[in-house]
Amino acid sequence: MKYCSSCGSTVEFRVPKGDTLPRHVCPNCGAVHYQNPKIVVGALPEWEGRVLLCRRAIEPRHGMWTLPAGFMENEETTAEGAARETLEEACARIDVGPMYTLIDVPYISQVHIIYRARLLDLDFRPGEESLEVALFDEADIPWEQIAFRTIALTLRHYFADRRSGNWAFHTASIDTPPPGYVLPGQPPHG
Amino acid sequence: MKYCSSCGSTVEFRVPKGDTLPRHVCPNCGAVHYQNPKIVVGALPEWEGRVLLCRRAIEPRHGMWTLPAGFMENEETTAEGAARETLEEACARIDVGPMYTLIDVPYISQVHIIYRARLLDLDFRPGEESLEVALFDEADIPWEQIAFRTIALTLRHYFADRRSGNWAFHTASIDTPPPGYVLPGQPPHG
Repeated sequence: MKYCSSCGSTVEFRVPKGDTLPRHVCPNCGAVHYQNPKIVVGALPEWEGRVLLCRRAIEPRHGMWTLPAGFMENEETTAEGAARETLEEACARIDVGPMYTLIDVPYISQVHIIYRARLLDLDFRPGEESLEVALFDEADIPWEQIAFRTIALTLRHYFADRRSGNWAFHTASIDTPPPGYVLPGQPPHG
Repeated sequence: MKYCSSCGSTVEFRVPKGDTLPRHVCPNCGAVHYQNPKIVVGALPEWEGRVLLCRRAIEPRHGMWTLPAGFMENEETTAEGAARETLEEACARIDVGPMYTLIDVPYISQVHIIYRARLLDLDFRPGEESLEVALFDEADIPWEQIAFRTIALTLRHYFADRRSGNWAFHTASIDTPPPGYVLPGQPPHG
């Protein structure tokens, strides 16, 4: 952020009076521009023991598999966001069940929330951000091709809970980037 | 948002190519400025059957009681945010326990997450945003003076679960504003 989105002046990066952290502050109009973590919402849609996955048509992780999920929008609930993302990425309708995992990813300032869900019919197909959409038995899950660690962890919990019969809500924090991850603003290794 | 925070040009409000919702888009540099829900994180600190509440020294709801909670910051986890807010608002140190409630508040694009917590000592006092900090037995909770409905709902779950001995994680959505609430951008009743 270089310019004030309210008045267009050049912003300063400093600790506002009464605050504890540096913020983008406008010296002209006084606006303080906070930046806060984003929520990613998604669903784990089930159909007769199989799980719906999408193969990504976009970066990051183009070509890898994931549960339908994406950034939560203003004025929706987390459950509504999970259903919306499933419709957008898999053209699939779901009955949203209980919240299943909430995983902090602090190094990218995100919180990932996945709901269990029941696929309502088999009328699904890839949305604009997906190359393929398919149902997987546990034995066929492409574990080496799962796009994100929060999704792999959610899937591991799902199959473990299903085996034990003890369904629980799971929280976790993934505190360090995966190998090879380049933090925004840092140059990649040459 | 009137001006692009990247280049200072006047932004347009329109649906970007390949998107489904209108966004603030810069016609000069092409930046798309997304606006997403914010997370409020907090704690329900317990001490020998009593619960720590803070009386607010700031708007909204100046003078009313609440659990220590506030906007989650970038690069922290939800649990770290709960501990930080408790330190800031009550100068109190806690051992953060399990996530306890997650409540959607879509009409203000917020998600409120409260953790159960154990107060580590009685060395607490009001932080800058609090007028008073005190421990309450269930019988003394100032129910008519609780600042936010998400906090009142969390406290009701807490005392009900404690009575039944069945501790659970609770989710909910509060879909309509409270009586008299003025949505941002709308004039108050004259």
